Amino acid sequence: MKRIVILGSTGSIGINTLEVIRQHPDRFNVVGLAAGSNVEEMIRQAEEFRPRIISMEEESAAETVRQGVSYPVEVVWGGEGLLVLASLKESDYVVSAIVGSRGLPPTLAAIQAGKTIGLANKESLVMGGSLVMEASRKAGVSILPIDSEHSALFQSMNGEPRERIRRILVTASGGSFRDWPRERLVTATKEEALQHPNWSMGAKVTIDSATLMNKGLEVIEARWLFDLPYDQIDVLIHPESIIHSLVEYEDGAMMAQLGTPDMKVPIQYALSYPERLPLKGEPLDLVAIGELHFRAPDLDRFPCLKIAYTCGRQGGTLPTVMNAANEIAVERFLAGQLSFLGIEEVLEEVLSRHTLVPHPTIDDLFEADRWAREMARQCDARVG
Amino acid sequence: MKRIVILGSTGSIGINTLEVIRQHPDRFNVVGLAAGSNVEEMIRQAEEFRPRIISMEEESAAETVRQGVSYPVEVVWGGEGLLVLASLKESDYVVSAIVGSRGLPPTLAAIQAGKTIGLANKESLVMGGSLVMEASRKAGVSILPIDSEHSALFQSMNGEPRERIRRILVTASGGSFRDWPRERLVTATKEEALQHPNWSMGAKVTIDSATLMNKGLEVIEARWLFDLPYDQIDVLIHPESIIHSLVEYEDGAMMAQLGTPDMKVPIQYALSYPERLPLKGEPLDLVAIGELHFRAPDLDRFPCLKIAYTCGRQGGTLPTVMNAANEIAVERFLAGQLSFLGIEEVLEEVLSRHTLVPHPTIDDLFEADRWAREMARQCDARVG
Repeated sequence: MKRIVILGSTGSIGINTLEVIRQHPDRFNVVGLAAGSNVEEMIRQAEEFRPRIISMEEESAAETVRQGVSYPVEVVWGGEGLLVLASLKESDYVVSAIVGSRGLPPTLAAIQAGKTIGLANKESLVMGGSLVMEASRKAGVSILPIDSEHSALFQSMNGEPRERIRRILVTASGGSFRDWPRERLVTATKEEALQHPNWSMGAKVTIDSATLMNKGLEVIEARWLFDLPYDQIDVLIHPESIIHSLVEYEDGAMMAQLGTPDMKVPIQYALSYPERLPLKGEPLDLVAIGELHFRAPDLDRFPCLKIAYTCGRQGGTLPTVMNAANEIAVERFLAGQLSFLGIEEVLEEVLSRHTLVPHPTIDDLFEADRWAREMARQCDARVG
Repeated sequence: MKRIVILGSTGSIGINTLEVIRQHPDRFNVVGLAAGSNVEEMIRQAEEFRPRIISMEEESAAETVRQGVSYPVEVVWGGEGLLVLASLKESDYVVSAIVGSRGLPPTLAAIQAGKTIGLANKESLVMGGSLVMEASRKAGVSILPIDSEHSALFQSMNGEPRERIRRILVTASGGSFRDWPRERLVTATKEEALQHPNWSMGAKVTIDSATLMNKGLEVIEARWLFDLPYDQIDVLIHPESIIHSLVEYEDGAMMAQLGTPDMKVPIQYALSYPERLPLKGEPLDLVAIGELHFRAPDLDRFPCLKIAYTCGRQGGTLPTVMNAANEIAVERFLAGQLSFLGIEEVLEEVLSRHTLVPHPTIDDLFEADRWAREMARQCDARVG
């Protein structure tokens, strides 16, 4: 029985994680849940899964949950609350599924407390890749990817000699605007950007898919997760999102994991690894799909991917600054304060002003994060 | 250092095996080579790889080789010669790459002598699946597939729990006539049948690809190699032959191996397993390929695949009879004595006359093989 804490239980990954746990009550037990402000969903989840402890972002939400839950439950809140849940004595496993840089401190805390990590929070590795991987080595802790692409890469390395990897290919649907010419992107609206062709995800990730920044973040994640140089990490546009990623070995063989766009598959794999468990869901029907397409990413139309490679290669505080500036730029785009192409303009502007710290401490990272957010908020970029 | 015997060294698989060995002189050493009648090629191979012992099909060819080779080499011949090579004391590993039912006795002998088997000879499992797998369990011997499809399946099971396999999908190019309507198959010529779209293989295998019997034989092989019931073995037409086969697990994930149509990849994998070694060759370029297609096999146009499933399911001597009748029918087709559709007619005719032996001994198998060949030769089927 794995005793699980979910950080971000009311988000898309959290809800799917609970669906997986629901299918395997004999294997998985929820001991703690953390969420932002979605009080109603948290109360529903608590009633069903009976965690011993809950954390909410604000004290008021925590209080509402405490009063709304029908059994005696400990409710904590804020960044401190997340750290409590991350290092909970009664858990073996922490699903880190908070979106954004707030996910890094509890992920690090969970690693230091010796928990196995199911990692969906990209920023833990984008910002703190070096620190997180070093901490996991020190603590002897496994970090299991939950992202469909990284899960596919991880599955395609199962039983294989890592030193024989020639390169990995992270597949990308190409996002909502994959077939739009650059000129048309000037007028792209929030509603258009939110229509992802294959996956149903949160707004932030969907916009990041449309800019290809999501793939850029995944490339940086992959660099840390699999300890590979950027020269061995390629992006492949694959509009159908059926091949979730591929690993090419030195003998020319490529291993790949394919599946329907169902997040429960990588989530369950991360929870059950090294086992595989049955999972209810629509099986992949390649005959019905009929064809799969591939093309190279167009870095001129979508410069965010190029920016991510550059920041990843230069390292230090740059990925943190890029990520923080991107979070704010996407927030401003979703709030109607920025055009779609304004996102990359903000990124370029903030990055050009940053003074790189080559070997940052965690405090340096959070200072860079804070600075980049402030800059990105002030940045005078094109409005839609 | 693996000390290798190759049975069928002058055929397509044999030549590719030697090319792999040529790339890794520090890993692999040739101790014995066996071939049919290609004396010139055998002498060339012997001079380069310096095997201690050689076997040829006929005594006269053996004598020519003995005289043609510049160093002292033992040369044996015939079925007896194959058995000597299969159980050679100085070898660890036998590549079984003779085409046809003649490959079964030396494969069994090599297993009984405790050699690891690199298996390209389909008939060892089609005819003697039950006997071969039982012998390999008894001897504690690994049988590693060399066929690209079975190698892909084997690679896609690497590190995975076998009991979680939902089904396997053996991919098929569809052969030379994949887009031909049934009516047109009536007039299909030998030259047309020999034009395989993707792979360069021997004539027998190329014709078997055109009838889909090759895939039928592979389905039966897979049943034994992976100990799966026929209900869990599907065939998927995939014209580009890039995904070499897939394994679907109970969580809905599919693992697959992709690659260019280069037999050296599965051959080297079988030789180097559980390691992977570097291999020179054109890397797979999915962007250049652009698209992959999939469809269901059409059993009405290509009834040989249906026949193979039926014979496999009924078991006993039936797969042996089917295989032997098919060998003769293909021989007759290649000799211009039979039309393309005459191949399936011969199969149906011979199978309909056979009295199934449910639990055959090896003698029963060879008697059924002999009987089926005789029947297939006499069979009065449509001539082109």
